[in-house]
Amino acid sequence: MKNYSDSYFMGECLKLAEKGRGKTLPNPMVGAVLVKNGKIVSWGFHKKSGLPHAEVVAINRVQGNLKEAALYVNLEPCSSHGKTPPCVEKILHAGIKRVVIATRDPNPLHNGRGIKILKQKGIKVKEGVLKKEAQYLNRVFFKHIVDKMPYVSVKVAQSLDGRMADFKGESKWISSKDARLYAHQELRSKVSAIIVGINTVLKDNPYLTARNKNGELFKTQPQIVVLDTRLRIPLTANIIKKGAGRTIVAVDKNLIKDKKRELVKKKGVRVFNISSCDGKINLKELLKKLYREGIYHVLVEGGGRVIESFINDKFIDEMYVFMNNAILGGDYSVYNGKGFKISSAPRLKNTEYKVFKDTILIKGELDYV
Amino acid sequence: MKNYSDSYFMGECLKLAEKGRGKTLPNPMVGAVLVKNGKIVSWGFHKKSGLPHAEVVAINRVQGNLKEAALYVNLEPCSSHGKTPPCVEKILHAGIKRVVIATRDPNPLHNGRGIKILKQKGIKVKEGVLKKEAQYLNRVFFKHIVDKMPYVSVKVAQSLDGRMADFKGESKWISSKDARLYAHQELRSKVSAIIVGINTVLKDNPYLTARNKNGELFKTQPQIVVLDTRLRIPLTANIIKKGAGRTIVAVDKNLIKDKKRELVKKKGVRVFNISSCDGKINLKELLKKLYREGIYHVLVEGGGRVIESFINDKFIDEMYVFMNNAILGGDYSVYNGKGFKISSAPRLKNTEYKVFKDTILIKGELDYV
Repeated sequence: MKNYSDSYFMGECLKLAEKGRGKTLPNPMVGAVLVKNGKIVSWGFHKKSGLPHAEVVAINRVQGNLKEAALYVNLEPCSSHGKTPPCVEKILHAGIKRVVIATRDPNPLHNGRGIKILKQKGIKVKEGVLKKEAQYLNRVFFKHIVDKMPYVSVKVAQSLDGRMADFKGESKWISSKDARLYAHQELRSKVSAIIVGINTVLKDNPYLTARNKNGELFKTQPQIVVLDTRLRIPLTANIIKKGAGRTIVAVDKNLIKDKKRELVKKKGVRVFNISSCDGKINLKELLKKLYREGIYHVLVEGGGRVIESFINDKFIDEMYVFMNNAILGGDYSVYNGKGFKISSAPRLKNTEYKVFKDTILIKGELDYV
Repeated sequence: MKNYSDSYFMGECLKLAEKGRGKTLPNPMVGAVLVKNGKIVSWGFHKKSGLPHAEVVAINRVQGNLKEAALYVNLEPCSSHGKTPPCVEKILHAGIKRVVIATRDPNPLHNGRGIKILKQKGIKVKEGVLKKEAQYLNRVFFKHIVDKMPYVSVKVAQSLDGRMADFKGESKWISSKDARLYAHQELRSKVSAIIVGINTVLKDNPYLTARNKNGELFKTQPQIVVLDTRLRIPLTANIIKKGAGRTIVAVDKNLIKDKKRELVKKKGVRVFNISSCDGKINLKELLKKLYREGIYHVLVEGGGRVIESFINDKFIDEMYVFMNNAILGGDYSVYNGKGFKISSAPRLKNTEYKVFKDTILIKGELDYV
């Protein structure tokens, strides 16, 4: 019999957890397996906020004695009564003797409490198995719990020499088709909202939809947030004509333009009144408002000025840089700010790479020194 | 018995050919193996210009009958009398019945002639095995034969957003230590000369040596070519103090400065008089002169203005872009030229990637549309 490792079983938990993507928030994605004599005898995942936790699903699914069983779960079992009774009690009642966990509960009030109770009751607990992978899976949830702010991903499509558009301002298509498909499937389809500047809307008139490889729309589409201090968005923009129900326009809170406001609202667009300075929306205020609206994961797609503001204000959690292999020159650099010293420049960490046709994706968390 | 493929044996030829690196020019690097009953029975490589060709070495090394043997060689055997008798004759005399070749002789006068003769004599010939790899191995030789110009590699160390230095002009160290080591071992130690602009000398005062991982100098060091129209190089520069014997300064041919010329020459530096325009050395004239001096492979290391000129004048054969994951901003873009349209921008083809610590190498041949 093959001897599977703790990492193997935790990997199975992460795969199960992933099945809940998009439906669990504000809860985390969690998967659990029960292992007896080296074999998985039951499994479960958290399907949706309000439904049972993964551990409970796994325990309830199995018949018979669990005294020899080990429970694997990617997040520390809860110890308090929420919408469901605490998982720790369920584990104790089931008679499970060993629990393997990837990450602790990020909530400071609960962090380590479930583990402590289990240990006090004589359960063997192992922590930290596939910790990094589990943290990454639930990075949006962790940000929500710890910072009460949306997790901010940024997508940049640039040339080899760091330009987002050629010297004429043309940016279609800097990255290759397979890279764009990846961006739809792995980014747009998984976030709560896409943020763009009004210039992107005026210039490219995008749809900002998430489409699959056949060009069909995914079942759930991200909301759209346009940074548009002066409410310049045309009523004929594609994101109003085709996506009004999911479009939010962030305007300067002191802007009057009552008539345009009414026209825009009539189309089904929501208007958020946000402070602004020098023609720039206050990003902190906007992000906080989006968070309160249940938007926990945003994808910033540009243009350059918007990305620059997010870099300068240190709001970026991770970046996806799709880099084409052309040399463009010209003025449309990704970052036009005053510049950083090498020693203190923001940089990517935990970097990963993925190769597409004529394009490479460099993906990492943004580390502000 | 394992059944080895033609690719396997050709791979062995390429490894043998590589042993001649740096010593064969103006001849190519060539390796050959003789295979009988699926086993390598003899081998050879071209050690040095003037010494026997790889095929001859392999045939001479073996005792006994070669009638059942196949010859593998990465370049079409020569058919004309050069410094040595033609290999085609040697092959025919040996009685070999099958010849496998990677690439044809690039010289239009000989291209396909050796193959034709062999076929006329009833030898089975297979071409094109590991052709791409063989072309890459001998790309400097091919350029020499076809264009009578040096092969131009360019090394760029840049930030994620395409800056070669931070906003203060500081460029040490944009790429990580392991990436710099790679650049010494795989680039500097393998080229005939490094080209830099005078600003790089004035600002960084580099040594421009090729060092191994212990910091020791490789046995052969590249020559150094400084683009210095007005002969501004200080006599105290490290490349004069420590590398005078291998340093060439390219100055405007109309420049007078007789005294400085004499001082520089006294230090062992050679001065090349080249046409210039707007303070820029005429690169074509310089490259032709370097070619005539037997410099067949140059590595352009910067700075930005020099690389820009090489891009604009379309002299780059391949680029090595070492990209760090920091965002620097500022004015030191890799390419500051007027800019290209996306559809007609120069871009890398046959791209390869290599991951270092916090740095990725993007390497490819430059394709001018």
